[in-house]
Amino acid sequence: MSSEKSFVKGSAAPGPVPDDKIRLYSMRFCPFAQRTRLVLAAKGIKHETMNINLKDKPEWFLKKNPLGLVPTLENSSGEVVYESPITCEYLEEVYPEKKLLPPSPFGKAQQKMMLEHFSKVVPYFYKIPMGRKNGEDVSALEGELKEKFAKLNEDLVNKKTGFFGGDSITLIDYMMWPWFERLELMELKHCLGGTPELKKWTERMSEDTAVKACMHSAETYKAFYKSYQEGKPDYDYGL
Amino acid sequence: MSSEKSFVKGSAAPGPVPDDKIRLYSMRFCPFAQRTRLVLAAKGIKHETMNINLKDKPEWFLKKNPLGLVPTLENSSGEVVYESPITCEYLEEVYPEKKLLPPSPFGKAQQKMMLEHFSKVVPYFYKIPMGRKNGEDVSALEGELKEKFAKLNEDLVNKKTGFFGGDSITLIDYMMWPWFERLELMELKHCLGGTPELKKWTERMSEDTAVKACMHSAETYKAFYKSYQEGKPDYDYGL
Repeated sequence: MSSEKSFVKGSAAPGPVPDDKIRLYSMRFCPFAQRTRLVLAAKGIKHETMNINLKDKPEWFLKKNPLGLVPTLENSSGEVVYESPITCEYLEEVYPEKKLLPPSPFGKAQQKMMLEHFSKVVPYFYKIPMGRKNGEDVSALEGELKEKFAKLNEDLVNKKTGFFGGDSITLIDYMMWPWFERLELMELKHCLGGTPELKKWTERMSEDTAVKACMHSAETYKAFYKSYQEGKPDYDYGL
Repeated sequence: MSSEKSFVKGSAAPGPVPDDKIRLYSMRFCPFAQRTRLVLAAKGIKHETMNINLKDKPEWFLKKNPLGLVPTLENSSGEVVYESPITCEYLEEVYPEKKLLPPSPFGKAQQKMMLEHFSKVVPYFYKIPMGRKNGEDVSALEGELKEKFAKLNEDLVNKKTGFFGGDSITLIDYMMWPWFERLELMELKHCLGGTPELKKWTERMSEDTAVKACMHSAETYKAFYKSYQEGKPDYDYGL
């Protein structure tokens, strides 16, 4: 993990990426960037992290990635890769030690299909807290989220495996995890009430070394999330 | 190409996929399914095609793919793969002859990033015709589409290559093509006016053997599109 404060507009551009490392442009609390951080940690890839102030982005960062999004990877040849699933698959190909994807084409396709399904779950983690904040009735949205969780639970029951890609952690587990880590923070933990296998999966996940290495304390999350909801995200909280 | 009429609700389920073939569930005029058809054609993969009536889907098809979407692939082991980019990458892995993706991890990542960008262009091909049909002023949407085209044009100019992945056709070209094939049909051809390199790309593409093999005549497209806009898509038009 990086202890570096985030780069803002007007900051000097960093030098080239050292030969023996890959660089991650990140934001410490971003669940999408956390996917890439998890893969870097799980595979033990030598890397450096530069955090970006997403409210006030450095000009040099926008030159590297015109979309200005994290996660963004840069290698020592100056090649830039962004979009969280693309960064993770790229790392998997460049660093073949400790494979996170199954070897068969169908196994890989299954992981991608699961990710596609999960991409329809992600919006609920934003819509429900936002709706609550605006004083809306979110019970219908919560009901829909519970249904999505029930589908994931069923998946684990049918597969009879501890993780979504088999009996050990694979990429799909890391791709889904960041939002589950934030369930309590987003006051959505009760949505796991009727899905015991999914709940057990979250317990198994929180024992994983990479998951632990990329996690913030509940207090840190709370403080950041509060600042974020007030429209003044404190990207450097706790540093 | 298949000359088979589309399967409807109540139809008998087809038998297993023969050992030496892969099966595509398709709809003859679907641009997403056309991506997979292009890859099957370009790679010369032995396959069979079963067309699905998307307004009245067979129960057996919904069992294979609960989302009920085309393209869906099925192999002789009964493994099912869907979502057009996933089906194409799957075919690329299973049939390594005539590679459509570059060998380097960065080359592959670039193709995925281009596809991600292009996924933000696709909605315009639906929003503009729909807006026109409803008598709305679509000039702002057309302006946005022209800007997206200008970006794609700039890409080709900067790369100095005939295609988006280099000097020969690669997967990304096939992934984008189906919507360009429909420009005239959707009365959007004028949006290519200020983008000469992109226009030249469409001309080069229409010379490709796989592109030609997967194309319908202008009359057939028009007749299908008319039926589609009237809410009664004639999936079997011309058979």
